[in-house]
Amino acid sequence: MSVIKPSLAKGTRDFSPVEMVKRNFIYDTIKTVFRKYGYAEIQTPSFENLSTLTGKYGDEGDKLIFKILNSGDYLSQNVLNEIATLQKKFDEAEGYIAKYDDSDPNKSLTGGYANAIFGSKDDFAKLLKAHDLYRKVSKNVLPELSEKALRYDLTVPFARYVVMHQHEITLPFKRFQVQPVWRADRPQKGRYREFYQCDVDVVGSESLLNEAEFILIYNEALSKLGLKDFTVKINNRKILSGIAEIIGKPELIIDMTVAIDKLDKIGLDGVSKELLERGFTEQDLEKLRPVILLEGFNEEKLASLKEVLAESETGLKGIAEIEQVFDYVESLIAYGLPLTAKLELDITLARGLNYYTGCIFEVKTNEVAMGSIGGGGRYDDLTGMFGLKGLTGVGVSFGADRIYDVLEELNLFPASAEVGTKVLISNFDEAAEKYALPIVQQLRNAGIAAELYPSSAKLKKQMAYADAKNIPYVILVGGDEISSGELTLKDMQSGEQKKLTVLGILELLK
Amino acid sequence: MSVIKPSLAKGTRDFSPVEMVKRNFIYDTIKTVFRKYGYAEIQTPSFENLSTLTGKYGDEGDKLIFKILNSGDYLSQNVLNEIATLQKKFDEAEGYIAKYDDSDPNKSLTGGYANAIFGSKDDFAKLLKAHDLYRKVSKNVLPELSEKALRYDLTVPFARYVVMHQHEITLPFKRFQVQPVWRADRPQKGRYREFYQCDVDVVGSESLLNEAEFILIYNEALSKLGLKDFTVKINNRKILSGIAEIIGKPELIIDMTVAIDKLDKIGLDGVSKELLERGFTEQDLEKLRPVILLEGFNEEKLASLKEVLAESETGLKGIAEIEQVFDYVESLIAYGLPLTAKLELDITLARGLNYYTGCIFEVKTNEVAMGSIGGGGRYDDLTGMFGLKGLTGVGVSFGADRIYDVLEELNLFPASAEVGTKVLISNFDEAAEKYALPIVQQLRNAGIAAELYPSSAKLKKQMAYADAKNIPYVILVGGDEISSGELTLKDMQSGEQKKLTVLGILELLK
Repeated sequence: MSVIKPSLAKGTRDFSPVEMVKRNFIYDTIKTVFRKYGYAEIQTPSFENLSTLTGKYGDEGDKLIFKILNSGDYLSQNVLNEIATLQKKFDEAEGYIAKYDDSDPNKSLTGGYANAIFGSKDDFAKLLKAHDLYRKVSKNVLPELSEKALRYDLTVPFARYVVMHQHEITLPFKRFQVQPVWRADRPQKGRYREFYQCDVDVVGSESLLNEAEFILIYNEALSKLGLKDFTVKINNRKILSGIAEIIGKPELIIDMTVAIDKLDKIGLDGVSKELLERGFTEQDLEKLRPVILLEGFNEEKLASLKEVLAESETGLKGIAEIEQVFDYVESLIAYGLPLTAKLELDITLARGLNYYTGCIFEVKTNEVAMGSIGGGGRYDDLTGMFGLKGLTGVGVSFGADRIYDVLEELNLFPASAEVGTKVLISNFDEAAEKYALPIVQQLRNAGIAAELYPSSAKLKKQMAYADAKNIPYVILVGGDEISSGELTLKDMQSGEQKKLTVLGILELLK
Repeated sequence: MSVIKPSLAKGTRDFSPVEMVKRNFIYDTIKTVFRKYGYAEIQTPSFENLSTLTGKYGDEGDKLIFKILNSGDYLSQNVLNEIATLQKKFDEAEGYIAKYDDSDPNKSLTGGYANAIFGSKDDFAKLLKAHDLYRKVSKNVLPELSEKALRYDLTVPFARYVVMHQHEITLPFKRFQVQPVWRADRPQKGRYREFYQCDVDVVGSESLLNEAEFILIYNEALSKLGLKDFTVKINNRKILSGIAEIIGKPELIIDMTVAIDKLDKIGLDGVSKELLERGFTEQDLEKLRPVILLEGFNEEKLASLKEVLAESETGLKGIAEIEQVFDYVESLIAYGLPLTAKLELDITLARGLNYYTGCIFEVKTNEVAMGSIGGGGRYDDLTGMFGLKGLTGVGVSFGADRIYDVLEELNLFPASAEVGTKVLISNFDEAAEKYALPIVQQLRNAGIAAELYPSSAKLKKQMAYADAKNIPYVILVGGDEISSGELTLKDMQSGEQKKLTVLGILELLK
């Protein structure tokens, strides 16, 4: 076996113990909130049939799907053998081909050089057989190379799950899913080829209570993670449709929203320019501008929109939906947690319009410069792609990787999220080890994560080990301790040492 | 978008909410024990460079590695285009080849048929170009089709992790890892192409305390999962080496252990037959038989082995290691948990000898017929494959899928592992909904998983929903309840109904 210097596959990461504890802190916090709101976890397989995934993410998305070769067995045995045979035959035939020169009449086939090139029938037969083999490989084998692929998101597998399990599940079906997804994107800072998604969705319920509860889920989960200032932006697809309707260009709704979605980045002038390019007139823009620039409290925005959209049934329905969601949120928090989240109606919020049909959400932290840390919305036909029509749903997701970076930057990971083992017992010599053995087990039996250093190494080394693992306490067991029955407990942060019995230590560490 | 009836990829599974709760019960229980013994979680990426994985699992294993196509983009654009061009050229050239008949001198090339076959220089040039293209595809493209693969186990990625992070980690490094692995095996009952492994290993410590602690980890984790009768079998590679040495056939150690490993399945006669086939003589068998058939308490077996292996230094070292492990276990449990696990020295236990170098373990439940539910051992050169020599390690794993089946069969999943939402509040009409909104939030704020049915559906439907989700309590809120302030709490199991205030319900459900 040749020794190779190992490396990670491009765009992937290892997670060390310290990172895992922090990641688990995020996932556990979010999952606990999901469960409290009645959502249950499911998991789907890492790979799906290619036919389940292709055509769902647009041409650009399809290219980023990681495809799996049909099975190591099939490729290595059949295909690779064929290819090897083929290469051998071609190496044999190569000599003849090299002699051929189409530009020199004396060396071309029609110039009578054929017999010289193919010295014998057998040689030519070899060439023809190699041809046949190649044809077989290309025609039969290559198109069958892959029929499954790694999942690209959790949404399409969820739709597949709902359709396949439609006779077992009871609607409304409330599920959450926290699993990795894979994309063959060019890796760059903050963008990986393997990353986790945290999705929470309910299908089979039209009630806007679901939308309201997602706002509370964001509020509670992000607050529990330590964020103090964040905004949940809300908009409604029907409001956007209404605006396009009022302008008289309902067919341009996608162009309109793609353009106004960029307000933050390119400003009003940029948006106006793009709208004109996309088929709107100056008169259209005059109607659109006041809507795009709508400012003030949510109530004020809603009042203005009601006037603007007075003639659009769809638009008014969108407004009514938002109002109902706001009402629900207010009722829900009446005797409850404070609403840390700022709730902001944002008419320029678009989020992939081809998909959503009602309320849409996006979450941003106001404490650090960072893209959205969550988002989602209502869709009316997610399972239609698999033949189950008319099932409405609404869902949101948490951007766990970005939340990780935010918590890191704001120093919000609690100290408890950095501790694994709570106490290390030192190991001086055989006698001390023997004395310590039942003690380490007593600590564990009391639910305290404890280690006995596994050999009688130098104390300095044992202390370095405790330091490296962020172990907050070390128990020193030497001759004095054994004879007195009082152990020395060292607080690694303060350096303070105390003499305590095992019971005393148990009480202190519990 | 055409509608396809969705299906799962072969050998994969969805996990429903009920299954997930049970699976999490297993993982959480095991992980909690790992942490208590000072092991910290890491995660490695789902796919690794192909060069990291190939050559590590033997020829049979290599075939079962799932390879990933180099990226959808690369294959679909470059390769598929080349293949398409190629097929077109070959279709053109095919006509000429069809005319060639090597068995008919009049139609063979050497028979002067060449000019007739290749009507013009251009036609022959096409054929040669097609050749060139094929050569390019096979030589350059096909070997580059895949350069990464899904991990086959957690052990090789762990070795890669240790080598790559050797300057950050402090030895001994104690890690656990619970992640899925993928194998292109033929799926069958109980064998999947995606399944989870739960591995726990320590590298960089020779101390046999580690081995002893793994026995306690098995004992504690399996007891906490509810198993009451299970056996941890232990053997030592050095004892097996010693036996082969004593017989005078040290070079046949692998043949010997492969044969005696089958004692359970093929009996002593079968083992004897196989040993004779593998190069042992009748005299060898006479020496071997009493060792294979060793019975009695562990102490008795050890005493007999000491006599048999008196002349083998290696064999005696293996015995001493086992004795030391037993001593540690006894000291550890002195004031601790009872040892539910039966600890059994089993000389016929082998477990992939090319890998392990010291103690080896295997765990079986005695309550159900089922293969091993765990196993592992000490290896002395795991990281050698990546160029880091001389790092000893020991580790074990839990077979979570089999443990799941055992707990299911013995009905050991606790009721609490089947409950998600604890209480559902009914939704009769708008007034009741408005009244219930702050109540559902109060319950959640108290840490109780609660749902308000999202619309005023028929009560029967709401009750069916609670039933389907195994929700143990339903709160009925109607006109009476609103006016009296006392809600009706229904226990879904007993059918019993109580009138209680919100505070009363909070106290009861907490």
